[in-house]
Amino acid sequence: MAAPAPARRRRTPAPPAFPHPRLADAFEIYFKDALSERCAGPPKLRQAMRYAALGPGKRVRPLLVLLSCEAVGGDWFHALPAAVAVECVHAFSLVHDDLPAMDDDDYRRGRLTTHRKYGEALGLLAGDALLAFAFEELTMLEGAGVPAPRVLEAVRRLARASGSDDLVGGQALDMAAEGRRVRAADVEAIHTRKTGALMGACLALGAIAGGADPRTVEVLDDAGRLMGLVFQIHDDLLNASSSLSRLGKRAGTDAARGKATYHRAVGEAAALEKEQSLLRSARLILETHCLHPTRLLALLDTLAARER
Amino acid sequence: MAAPAPARRRRTPAPPAFPHPRLADAFEIYFKDALSERCAGPPKLRQAMRYAALGPGKRVRPLLVLLSCEAVGGDWFHALPAAVAVECVHAFSLVHDDLPAMDDDDYRRGRLTTHRKYGEALGLLAGDALLAFAFEELTMLEGAGVPAPRVLEAVRRLARASGSDDLVGGQALDMAAEGRRVRAADVEAIHTRKTGALMGACLALGAIAGGADPRTVEVLDDAGRLMGLVFQIHDDLLNASSSLSRLGKRAGTDAARGKATYHRAVGEAAALEKEQSLLRSARLILETHCLHPTRLLALLDTLAARER
Repeated sequence: MAAPAPARRRRTPAPPAFPHPRLADAFEIYFKDALSERCAGPPKLRQAMRYAALGPGKRVRPLLVLLSCEAVGGDWFHALPAAVAVECVHAFSLVHDDLPAMDDDDYRRGRLTTHRKYGEALGLLAGDALLAFAFEELTMLEGAGVPAPRVLEAVRRLARASGSDDLVGGQALDMAAEGRRVRAADVEAIHTRKTGALMGACLALGAIAGGADPRTVEVLDDAGRLMGLVFQIHDDLLNASSSLSRLGKRAGTDAARGKATYHRAVGEAAALEKEQSLLRSARLILETHCLHPTRLLALLDTLAARER
Repeated sequence: MAAPAPARRRRTPAPPAFPHPRLADAFEIYFKDALSERCAGPPKLRQAMRYAALGPGKRVRPLLVLLSCEAVGGDWFHALPAAVAVECVHAFSLVHDDLPAMDDDDYRRGRLTTHRKYGEALGLLAGDALLAFAFEELTMLEGAGVPAPRVLEAVRRLARASGSDDLVGGQALDMAAEGRRVRAADVEAIHTRKTGALMGACLALGAIAGGADPRTVEVLDDAGRLMGLVFQIHDDLLNASSSLSRLGKRAGTDAARGKATYHRAVGEAAALEKEQSLLRSARLILETHCLHPTRLLALLDTLAARER
């Protein structure tokens, strides 16, 4: 397969997974502040929220938001509220997916899941509160100089991406597909909803924060959806082969549970080919529509090059 | 106790519980449309959402929104998206409160709870999706002519009222208080968060939709919180004495579960007195700050006069 990234990146010895330390640090500080200073409530609940949201994680979605803002010519700093919002939505979905009524997982990222640590009631409520907080935080884009009508567009996009047609709907389809024979189109529908929609929102929200025109926001949303599909196909392949220490949860859990995965539907070779084809489409959109896509492209390549 | 409503209302033979058929009908049509036409996703999930949201209910919160809009001189029609949004948040909170990890209720409003009807996973997801949809729907205030910065304020207020410091936080405190000896102040804190905050948001959002100035929005939020406390103290008293047929769930369930109720903390007489005192404060705010409070005041009286 052709390596689409510039050769320079490939030669760097043992690169960090997401080589944007300044952005990543700034986000981490801002995120902790948001959840500690601006998010009130009973101490136990806030503890559970912070446990769910601030634990070890790749922070792919916030980086997508910040780098999308940069890619359209904005200052990534202005997109921080949107980055926090999408990470809160992501954390909400993980906490609820892990609950006994859903995937019933005891471990995530190498430690106890939120409901195993704080009890099922607080796990459920922490997820709910993170979803609500995402929208409160997102409105802070206005304070960062984004015009109110554009902030409202961001709210609308995040609500849709989180809701019945996308994130939550994808989880419903995923649960229904468990243990059943699935076709590639079904898996694509699930992955696009569960992962693609929120990654689409990441790029769209970043572009809105960066002052992009509506047409650019729309195509970046499309690119994000493709990236989400790449990410998820890659994740499924990793799950099938990785060790506990690398993935933070037991390898092969998808297969054991009969989860709908792309490679189970089409085979590993076809899944890898699909991944590369999606990657090329996403790259093409970014290269065509962005002023400064370099770091966003690099992140995309990193996502698709995570070690198996 | 003094009857604060005009004598005319009292004399009406067998008045309907919420005597605003035109508003109530308009809301019902708009609400069904919103959940059927504008809310996409897998059929089973949408069914569960509609079951949770569109079942028999008093629609107190939507009426508060619409009548608050009218009270500040606006056309209640413009506030319909906000009325849908708060009712979705309310439905979300009921579905999640009923889950086995929380109150573990099998019946609500005389029929099976959502998770008992559709399974626990879909119950959980329907609640999540209703919360997300609330924010999508709320942004439609912009299309109803409300300036974008004011719509953003509405989003911020609804997110806060739904989140860790209010609705969800109140539920966390309520769970923690179960079976423990509670003081009046603790119960007030729980009721103000669980019920008061969202009712405060109802009045605030209605006022925003009606074009009220920020100061009026703020005091109406306060009045709504007081009304929420009235409503909840009254509800607790009803629960202690009502029959299954009237309440739609088993009477005395709060006591059996050791729920934190105001009358358990201070006795029934003091609870009734507190209710009347709160009622007077709320009336005073509405009479002082609203141009056309008549129907909003009547609704307030109806809430506090529900039969035991």
